[in-house]
Amino acid sequence: MSGIADVARLAGVSKSTASRALTGGGYVSDGTRRRVADAAASLGYVPTTSAVSLATGRTRTIALIVPKVNRWYFGSIVEGVERSLIPHGYDLTLYVAEPGSRDRESLYATYLARKRFDGIIAVALEPDDSELERLRSIDKPTVSIGNALEGVATLGIDNIAITRIMTEHLITLGHTDIAFVGSTPPADTPARDVDERSIGYHNAMADHGLAVRVRAVPSTLTITDAYAAAASFLADAAARPTAIVAACDEVAIGVIIAARRLGISVPTQLSVVGIDGHDYADMFALTTMEQYPHQQGTEAAGILMSMIEGEGPPLRTQAATRLVVRSSTSRPRGS
Amino acid sequence: MSGIADVARLAGVSKSTASRALTGGGYVSDGTRRRVADAAASLGYVPTTSAVSLATGRTRTIALIVPKVNRWYFGSIVEGVERSLIPHGYDLTLYVAEPGSRDRESLYATYLARKRFDGIIAVALEPDDSELERLRSIDKPTVSIGNALEGVATLGIDNIAITRIMTEHLITLGHTDIAFVGSTPPADTPARDVDERSIGYHNAMADHGLAVRVRAVPSTLTITDAYAAAASFLADAAARPTAIVAACDEVAIGVIIAARRLGISVPTQLSVVGIDGHDYADMFALTTMEQYPHQQGTEAAGILMSMIEGEGPPLRTQAATRLVVRSSTSRPRGS
Repeated sequence: MSGIADVARLAGVSKSTASRALTGGGYVSDGTRRRVADAAASLGYVPTTSAVSLATGRTRTIALIVPKVNRWYFGSIVEGVERSLIPHGYDLTLYVAEPGSRDRESLYATYLARKRFDGIIAVALEPDDSELERLRSIDKPTVSIGNALEGVATLGIDNIAITRIMTEHLITLGHTDIAFVGSTPPADTPARDVDERSIGYHNAMADHGLAVRVRAVPSTLTITDAYAAAASFLADAAARPTAIVAACDEVAIGVIIAARRLGISVPTQLSVVGIDGHDYADMFALTTMEQYPHQQGTEAAGILMSMIEGEGPPLRTQAATRLVVRSSTSRPRGS
Repeated sequence: MSGIADVARLAGVSKSTASRALTGGGYVSDGTRRRVADAAASLGYVPTTSAVSLATGRTRTIALIVPKVNRWYFGSIVEGVERSLIPHGYDLTLYVAEPGSRDRESLYATYLARKRFDGIIAVALEPDDSELERLRSIDKPTVSIGNALEGVATLGIDNIAITRIMTEHLITLGHTDIAFVGSTPPADTPARDVDERSIGYHNAMADHGLAVRVRAVPSTLTITDAYAAAASFLADAAARPTAIVAACDEVAIGVIIAARRLGISVPTQLSVVGIDGHDYADMFALTTMEQYPHQQGTEAAGILMSMIEGEGPPLRTQAATRLVVRSSTSRPRGS
């Protein structure tokens, strides 16, 4: 089996340079790094990482914390982060911590306390004050996707502004009876993005002198929960709004599926807008504000890599969005 | 900051016993392990793991390899595995390797070669002969979910038998014009479970003297791809079968969404069966054979933990399934 000495000899550099090139510990020119990497590859040499870690203080591992994996938005971020780390030779350890779950305590007490990582990417993490204090005390480069955490580099979208745009899209078409469909989360699990989206809707309605009507989707903002809620609240034709601002695309899609089952024509009888750009948005002809979670994962990984290399973090990075108008929205019937 | 000596003193044990209790290296009684863990928790002590790893040869990390994260089946497995590892104090490193992607090479050359794990869970991994050889040469406990790999402990379902049952469910209802909808994967990315399901359909049809009709879903077996394919092949009423066996629930759901858009009544004009028990199956009233990927993740983690503790692996474990008949299937019209 080849050792670091063999790699150094083949690359024509010293052992310490070869070691630096392979572990990322200290400056090596790009050309040298490539030559050493090629030599290591041709010899099948891979550094044993426990020893590397003790020597360099680096684990070459990134901690990724998400509230769920099995949802389009979070799953896309996980794939984006993972894909970006491979070329850097980093491993990704995954921790799933649903708000309000018992795993939250072990997140801080065990997983983060062990510090088996060089940096942290936290997605939609909503720490309370003591958790935020513990997160900061870990003292590793950290990037938050979604929520702006005080003193932490954040990548996110402007939920208030975006929901205002979606609401005004419907107002401009002539709608006045517009409901917002989203959950009212329990106090111990604040879903800040949904709260912000609700605020954007309220602001737009207030500015145009329109009454707000909010329909709560119980528990989670999934297609299935929204479908169940909509199948009930859309059934009464007299109380039905002419348009719906959904808190996210999954809610919008659940509403559309329920409307179709009830024989309610979208958009003729009911216009629906979402937010997210879900994989299924096109299939349901959904007008939505796209965001790009896979790309957000890539960007967050890039920011974190720069921070690990010693660069100062950007305090807040705005993630890309784009309004896509499809045929789930039209002027209200009779207008 | 507290050290291992403080933990040992508080727990009333020797330093080496405290170390064994916290790292899992060697025998410690349950009572002692609990006392040491409580002492460590009250002191906020967490072992630095690079040193532990060098001392014990254990990394307390599990490698999880999946082809995708952002799909219901794979996302559920990831959540099941992750949840099971937390109480054991293990970290999970995630590697996403789509068949045929460039990441496949770095999977073996870098991620697996570094051996920064005590065991491997591989989901739907379809290694060629040389890859299987490399996987075995890593010489770590390994569990495969989905595909039976020679010499590797496997947890999976019997795809051939299950698809036969679903096909015979339709034959028993009186259908004779039954199509199988699934992809014909390119030669370099064999999707074995879909191939097996296709075989189960063919066998059932042949046994009943019925002609087979296969509709390919291009590229991936997703709801959106199946929707696009079905919107096209269902449009010709004369060529339409009376029933469809879908390769998985996502394909079945895409078919149902397309049928509804085309005004084709399910099940009156078209019966549809799926396989999987997807989160959306109930919303689409889909008759399906449920499997439980979250539970499969939990079971695989349990098997792997036993193997790491030195137990011999079970060679093949059958995962649970259950036929759920809903209203997407009925007798064909006019029978």
